[in-house]
Amino acid sequence: MCFPMRAVDIIQKKRDGGTLTREEIQFFVGGVTSGTLPDYQAAALLMAVFFRGMDPAETAQLTDAMIHSGVTLDLSDIPGSKVDKHSTGGVGDKTSLVIAPVVAASGALVPMMSGRGLGHTGGTLDKLESIPGFRTNLSIQEMKAAVADLGCALVGQTTDIAPADRTLYALRDVTGTIECIPLISASIMSKKIAEGVDALVLDVKVGRGAFMKSEGDARKLAQTLVGIGRAGGVNTQAVITAQDWPLGRAVGNANEVIECLEVMKGRGPADLIELSLDLSARMLMAAGVARTRADAEALCRKAIDSGSALEKFRRIIERQGGDPRVVDDYERLPRAPEQHVIRAPSSGFVAQLDAGLIGRAAVVLGGGRDKVDDAVDPGVGIIMKATVGDSVQQGDAILELHYRQRHRLDAALPLATSALQVALAAPPPRPLILEEIF
Amino acid sequence: MCFPMRAVDIIQKKRDGGTLTREEIQFFVGGVTSGTLPDYQAAALLMAVFFRGMDPAETAQLTDAMIHSGVTLDLSDIPGSKVDKHSTGGVGDKTSLVIAPVVAASGALVPMMSGRGLGHTGGTLDKLESIPGFRTNLSIQEMKAAVADLGCALVGQTTDIAPADRTLYALRDVTGTIECIPLISASIMSKKIAEGVDALVLDVKVGRGAFMKSEGDARKLAQTLVGIGRAGGVNTQAVITAQDWPLGRAVGNANEVIECLEVMKGRGPADLIELSLDLSARMLMAAGVARTRADAEALCRKAIDSGSALEKFRRIIERQGGDPRVVDDYERLPRAPEQHVIRAPSSGFVAQLDAGLIGRAAVVLGGGRDKVDDAVDPGVGIIMKATVGDSVQQGDAILELHYRQRHRLDAALPLATSALQVALAAPPPRPLILEEIF
Repeated sequence: MCFPMRAVDIIQKKRDGGTLTREEIQFFVGGVTSGTLPDYQAAALLMAVFFRGMDPAETAQLTDAMIHSGVTLDLSDIPGSKVDKHSTGGVGDKTSLVIAPVVAASGALVPMMSGRGLGHTGGTLDKLESIPGFRTNLSIQEMKAAVADLGCALVGQTTDIAPADRTLYALRDVTGTIECIPLISASIMSKKIAEGVDALVLDVKVGRGAFMKSEGDARKLAQTLVGIGRAGGVNTQAVITAQDWPLGRAVGNANEVIECLEVMKGRGPADLIELSLDLSARMLMAAGVARTRADAEALCRKAIDSGSALEKFRRIIERQGGDPRVVDDYERLPRAPEQHVIRAPSSGFVAQLDAGLIGRAAVVLGGGRDKVDDAVDPGVGIIMKATVGDSVQQGDAILELHYRQRHRLDAALPLATSALQVALAAPPPRPLILEEIF
Repeated sequence: MCFPMRAVDIIQKKRDGGTLTREEIQFFVGGVTSGTLPDYQAAALLMAVFFRGMDPAETAQLTDAMIHSGVTLDLSDIPGSKVDKHSTGGVGDKTSLVIAPVVAASGALVPMMSGRGLGHTGGTLDKLESIPGFRTNLSIQEMKAAVADLGCALVGQTTDIAPADRTLYALRDVTGTIECIPLISASIMSKKIAEGVDALVLDVKVGRGAFMKSEGDARKLAQTLVGIGRAGGVNTQAVITAQDWPLGRAVGNANEVIECLEVMKGRGPADLIELSLDLSARMLMAAGVARTRADAEALCRKAIDSGSALEKFRRIIERQGGDPRVVDDYERLPRAPEQHVIRAPSSGFVAQLDAGLIGRAAVVLGGGRDKVDDAVDPGVGIIMKATVGDSVQQGDAILELHYRQRHRLDAALPLATSALQVALAAPPPRPLILEEIF
């Protein structure tokens, strides 16, 4: 006798610690995509996966099934090596806006597909859209043309890439099954592999402002992501980077655009420069544009120093409908009308600026979203006048909250205030880049 | 600020090993009952409970919330002590049809609410309905009148008792969350406590034909059930009984009615007599009708020997619309037209008659159901001409399959054949009643 596959059998198999076959995983993802698998069975399987995990083969098969739930991009008719970067999400994590122009100005192609902020983390698309007129919803043809002409496009995911991921992510969000490394990995990598890039550099964040709270979890996620990427034929590597306090000094969409422009002008905060150039150099090597690390770093440095990265960004803005004058005139960017300053309660050193709380405060001010359809206020945010390790005097301004509505400030203040700790001793220095995974 | 309760937080709390509060459990059950909690969130929570369990307080609160999802019976206006029995389900497990008349004839009131067969196990309602005309769907008023007049009614659950259980059970069935002791316990006890009985005796089956495969699991289930019953004010006890081979010699609805009538006539197989009278005696003691075990056994024995149990059953049949002449004339019961005999492949002792496989074979013949809305053929079934421990000669008839359709016989034969093992040595004797839990 030949029995048709039954969802309940697949659920029970995973529940009891079994390893799903490729066919079973395809049945699950196919049912999610077509809507023939009821949500309640998908939810039960997701929770069973949360408890039992998936081995590398199952995770790769899940990714593959999700890739093939939609279209995959074919960029092979554009000559050159295509490379992308993906971050698992942080606070003040704005490196994409520096990296894309730097890498494109250095000779690799950057067809970058980014996401929006959700929860306490920001998103590249929201930052770009704070530039008046900037369109991130290019069609695939528009995107390919921009990559061919400029070497770069900064776009959102089209709805026909990995549609199963969208359905599953929405279901995970409401069923307590987000924090699961195989599911996170398949979600990220299905979209990145479907993009058709040759190489990929992953920035896996760890710490108070990241989804991964321990280095062990971050390492496991990074290894899983790299394994899937390589199995999918993408030259993939990852770095694990610290995210206990925000990256740079600006949080909030327009604020962060300004900070990135400053970096491209050869100024800006050291940590943002360090991470942006490290990731850019890795991308150039992974794309085969630079042979050695020294060559790659030299190319990136030159892109900044010569102004070619800034010029590239100006042209990207123009190409995607934005107002390129923002590059020289920050007043053209939206700005919240009111400011509130949080000062050092005592003299000493900034010992903590909890990125999770700062991120939440920025969301509460209106700069992020709790639900995917929340509107974002591009002009609000938080400027850190000092960051962890800095020496401060009692009464010095530490956090500058840019807000539009008083009730939002009132809700954000307790979060921002409790994020800050000043101590008598300086905290031990901590490297930003903790580990690399090949 | 005051936040409304969110299902995803409750799911995450249980997922992470937390203990749910009474309010959280009520939110969950209330949402299931009203339909405001989406099925996928209920499914995710059920799977989290599968992995994390529930402590006795949570299980009691879940039961309580399920009881109050519907109506509870008030039998207080009928004078006398009301007692019920519940079995966790077995093969050939027909004791209710003997127990209800025996206990009612001995002076306790038996408002017995039973279920239908599902999967490989049989159900009391299906057996009763093989009696032409027998109605199990009495209204609550009809049921109460029957209990007041006859001391007994044998009915199905009305839809307004524990409706949350019906919804959750259907969801568990398709999400791989059936085999979970707290969920099983709350399902059983919510219905039993809502019945309004004073005392309850539980028969927890263990073995090849039972849902619980190990004595450890059966003990845990029995302890949980007894704990909930006592917390709910019902004088509850449990026995754990062996169910590796079928109870008695008959499987199939009409066949089992005949076997019960034989027991009430002072004949019938020893194991069925032993278990029926043991459970009946426990019920009489739990109901306070008998003070000592010896008194209780004497009452039961007298109910059989005097014919009063048989007379009680005749009157129950009549009262519930059935043809009471079946008591004396088994030809009035439905009977499948064809028979097929499976014989001993060698001489020796019957070493095994796997109850799970025999139960499956009976379902395949048409005597049970895989889905709740499958129709049942009351006339088909299996008669065991010998059972485990019996000495047999090669070629002796062991299993007699009563069937109506050849293709069903063909599908049942491999199951029935593989259920039977004949060995040279007799298997060690095993007690039927393994343990009692107070």
